[in-house]
Amino acid sequence: LPAVSDLVAIVGTGQMGLVLAESLASQGVRVRFWGRDRAAAETLARTRRSPARLPGLALPGSVEVTGRDEGLFDGATLAVSAVPTQFIAAIWGRLRRVLPERLAVVSVAKGIENGSLRRPTEAIAAAAGDETRAPRRALCALSGPTIAAELGRHLPATMVAASPDESLGRLVQRLFGSPWLRVYRNDDLVGVEVAGAAKNVIALAAGMVDGLGAGYNAKSALLARGLAEIARLGASMGARIDTFFGVAGVGDLATTCFCPEGRNRTCGERLGRGETLQRILSETASVVEGVPTTRSLVQLARAQGVDMPITTAVHAILFEGLGLRDAIAGLMAREPKAE
Amino acid sequence: LPAVSDLVAIVGTGQMGLVLAESLASQGVRVRFWGRDRAAAETLARTRRSPARLPGLALPGSVEVTGRDEGLFDGATLAVSAVPTQFIAAIWGRLRRVLPERLAVVSVAKGIENGSLRRPTEAIAAAAGDETRAPRRALCALSGPTIAAELGRHLPATMVAASPDESLGRLVQRLFGSPWLRVYRNDDLVGVEVAGAAKNVIALAAGMVDGLGAGYNAKSALLARGLAEIARLGASMGARIDTFFGVAGVGDLATTCFCPEGRNRTCGERLGRGETLQRILSETASVVEGVPTTRSLVQLARAQGVDMPITTAVHAILFEGLGLRDAIAGLMAREPKAE
Repeated sequence: LPAVSDLVAIVGTGQMGLVLAESLASQGVRVRFWGRDRAAAETLARTRRSPARLPGLALPGSVEVTGRDEGLFDGATLAVSAVPTQFIAAIWGRLRRVLPERLAVVSVAKGIENGSLRRPTEAIAAAAGDETRAPRRALCALSGPTIAAELGRHLPATMVAASPDESLGRLVQRLFGSPWLRVYRNDDLVGVEVAGAAKNVIALAAGMVDGLGAGYNAKSALLARGLAEIARLGASMGARIDTFFGVAGVGDLATTCFCPEGRNRTCGERLGRGETLQRILSETASVVEGVPTTRSLVQLARAQGVDMPITTAVHAILFEGLGLRDAIAGLMAREPKAE
Repeated sequence: LPAVSDLVAIVGTGQMGLVLAESLASQGVRVRFWGRDRAAAETLARTRRSPARLPGLALPGSVEVTGRDEGLFDGATLAVSAVPTQFIAAIWGRLRRVLPERLAVVSVAKGIENGSLRRPTEAIAAAAGDETRAPRRALCALSGPTIAAELGRHLPATMVAASPDESLGRLVQRLFGSPWLRVYRNDDLVGVEVAGAAKNVIALAAGMVDGLGAGYNAKSALLARGLAEIARLGASMGARIDTFFGVAGVGDLATTCFCPEGRNRTCGERLGRGETLQRILSETASVVEGVPTTRSLVQLARAQGVDMPITTAVHAILFEGLGLRDAIAGLMAREPKAE
């Protein structure tokens, strides 16, 4: 059970930040909850609600909401990074000044940084200036099939706390576990982060299948072949295959491909119906992590010498003007072979 | 491409038999289509439709529909067994008299025979009297995420032709492959049959999650943990782990857990809403393969010394009076651990 002295500093007031703040606080953990926009943080502190992000969720009174960098991590047991991957460098670069050298950071982002091709925990370490320090800061990815609205309603869910640092994994398991959230441990940080990033790209493709009305058979084949290419990439980077069988692998992929509310799937569905990417992104309030991550993954796959036909097709559709039906025809027409 | 001389004898006029007959015939393969009830077969021969089984599908005029055993396999390139697992012994026992010793049989059933704990192709071989013969008949399982109504509409889909006999695998790939159906080959007959059987049990559990309104996070966790226990069982029986990552593994599991129309998921959903199994089965026209297969799998898991907590819980709910909420609470409360 959480100890009275535990305090978790959550960085980022998006959906995952909100549900984790509510969940921790409802389990008796003290939470300091930081947003980069001080005026918005003050509104959230007062109203306890974020209707645009997660209608229905109310932050318990015990959650301290702040927009101030100073003192953000004072007395914290650990920090949570709940900001989209492409914003990590800016936000953790800004917070570097106040972040204690040894404070453990748990990331819930699902993407790969453009340009650097860093995983979220690598991007945090780089932004925090850890790379020149020894010993390194303990880092953890907390990932799994977690539709935020369901977590907010305390519906049963599972996550994986992935860290090479076993004591950090156990701490995250103890703090975040609850009667409705079962937290597994895993030492395969690379695998869990690769799975979390790459599933958003497959979810874009799954949405396109939905937009075309191609059916469950097609979407499930996409899920299976998508999982296979994600696992290939992960294995080439040193991940364990088992991770892709787990809740943070196939579990997260399934939710992302099938839950109608997912942002990446929804973006894909609108593309499948013929809307332009530019228009969809301009009308989507939240970040669609899969779009920038598709760019990173194609580069990563090339660098690793791994064949990722679905990810490559999504890239061609998003950024190279390939037609959707041509892409599907291309995937279906590949030489029949052993699976 | 199919040769003019190819003739496929399909045994069983259920949903899969119907869509395979239509699909083969529309690709120019000659089809002889057999039903055990001669009067029903004659009606089907005349009307070309089976509104109770698959409204919307019309059999091409080239499909020869018959209820006669005599001559059923004359000139056949191969036979397809499209009967539910628990009926294989009776039907192939009846057809044994007319079945040529060397004719290859392709099975599309997804279950494990009660009592004998045989996989479908094993049950066919036993019923056909193959066990005392050498060399053995070539056998193949054809499996994958195949909602019949979608296949009937020629929506894109994938299947796996699994056989230790590579030439049979290639023949099935050649005959059944089409512009809308991509057929992979796999030599892991055990893995594909175990995956196909066990996914129906997980689908019952997935339906229960739906019936309780527990959400996508819970169902996806169930899918991931279900896949893990299926793969454990398969590995103990000599299957390859890769098979469970494939379209006949995780692909079929995903469709079965998420497509609203699936019989096993629907049965589970009604259980989740509080209906009795007896009532549900009495009101379901088609066979719910997962129900008898749950009995077989629990015995198989015990014999193999494999831990299958979800399958065991489904068994307790179906046959031992365990309450659904108690079962979920039990699964969620297991000691937090490494995944």
